[in-house]
Amino acid sequence: MTPQKRILTGDRPTGKYHLGHYVGSIANRLRLQNDYECYFIIADLHTLTTKPNKAEVMGIEQNIRDMIIDQLACGLDPDKVTFYVQSSVKEIYQINLIFEMLVSVARLSRLPSIKDMARAAQIDDDQLPLGLLGYPVLQAADILMPRAHLVPVGKDNEAHVEITREIARRFNFLYGEVFPEPDVLVPDSGTLIGTDGQAKMSKSLNNTILLSDDAKTVDQKVRGMYTDPNRTRADIPGKVEGNPVFIYHDMFNPDVAEV
Amino acid sequence: MTPQKRILTGDRPTGKYHLGHYVGSIANRLRLQNDYECYFIIADLHTLTTKPNKAEVMGIEQNIRDMIIDQLACGLDPDKVTFYVQSSVKEIYQINLIFEMLVSVARLSRLPSIKDMARAAQIDDDQLPLGLLGYPVLQAADILMPRAHLVPVGKDNEAHVEITREIARRFNFLYGEVFPEPDVLVPDSGTLIGTDGQAKMSKSLNNTILLSDDAKTVDQKVRGMYTDPNRTRADIPGKVEGNPVFIYHDMFNPDVAEV
Repeated sequence: MTPQKRILTGDRPTGKYHLGHYVGSIANRLRLQNDYECYFIIADLHTLTTKPNKAEVMGIEQNIRDMIIDQLACGLDPDKVTFYVQSSVKEIYQINLIFEMLVSVARLSRLPSIKDMARAAQIDDDQLPLGLLGYPVLQAADILMPRAHLVPVGKDNEAHVEITREIARRFNFLYGEVFPEPDVLVPDSGTLIGTDGQAKMSKSLNNTILLSDDAKTVDQKVRGMYTDPNRTRADIPGKVEGNPVFIYHDMFNPDVAEV
Repeated sequence: MTPQKRILTGDRPTGKYHLGHYVGSIANRLRLQNDYECYFIIADLHTLTTKPNKAEVMGIEQNIRDMIIDQLACGLDPDKVTFYVQSSVKEIYQINLIFEMLVSVARLSRLPSIKDMARAAQIDDDQLPLGLLGYPVLQAADILMPRAHLVPVGKDNEAHVEITREIARRFNFLYGEVFPEPDVLVPDSGTLIGTDGQAKMSKSLNNTILLSDDAKTVDQKVRGMYTDPNRTRADIPGKVEGNPVFIYHDMFNPDVAEV
């Protein structure tokens, strides 16, 4: 019997999960927990790269609790999955510092993702924090700390896993075989349309249904959903395409025939 | 009674101390230990910024032992001084990572000292490791970890203490008053000429007398010292200026009149 492969994945502690998170990653995690040794990190140190202010930092603890509760409620099993908070593992800081010696400033500066993150956080080029340039190195520390074999990531993070592979190779070359070179596991999940019909459900667009919303809140949000602006009278046939009501129906109702 | 001010200073673990180290820093430390609360760090993680190879890393442990023994032999008193190894203090890694969020890449890139270190280590611009760019941040972690008030440094490191002050200010502004802004303490000590008459005693120039050399070795080194190349016969008067024999005599012989 070959031992189970190990998976590392996780989130920044940005707050309660919504249906978009469920479709984009939690549903996938529910499958993964049965076939892999799973390490799910809450990457709180990463939030400091773009949000170091005290008010934001003070909210992290509650966000972590909410996110763990949501994941347990979805059926992620703590007997199968190791949940942990990044900042509480001293070895992550330690290997992060060592890994910083093994990757060049030039290599990191060429990653478009760093500039994208800076732009999204409205950080000028001249103000780019060293820690933001080092973001992919800290990710490498996250991934290599549990010696993960597989990393489920979105398209935009594949380049960071490549940095992790380079760091693992360099470390192994210098000091001996310690870390596996992790592979990317691109999940077959997609993104979920928002309740307002916009392409993506997102807290910043205020178009979410939270996993922790109670029945009444969900009911209200569903009644307020975008449907078909051309269907101004009940006798005009509504369009099904791009209509979140029908998309959610197809996705979440096991009885697809019910309308 | 005001509490003693706290001092942080230290060395990379490059190996046994020589007389140049004694003149340049240890003699100063012997004075400082009576008036200040002293923290003397052996900064082994800093060696990784330019010397990450295994063979170099493997030598660090012995170097640390040799350097502590030399300092104790010189009269530094472990009841007055806290000696410690950088890599063994987990809090240094932790605050280093947090401090990396508080200083910009641009600020660090403008320091000439980083480029000088890279050049000395024969590292091309394009290969500059992230960890070397972060060197002054790790120094800030060293200095602020014990909340030092004073840092005895050479002229070339004053700019790094300025970075430390900026980080302390930024941290205190964001999260509340935690760290004192340390001041530079420029020691009144000089450099020591080498046994070969070159301007500086240095291991790489092979012109040292080690503090741990035995009497016979010292005797041999002294007999082989550079004196005055123009004094080819005993009846030609020798020059005293630039002659290390006379300079050492003035410096180390309490009986200055003896020749």
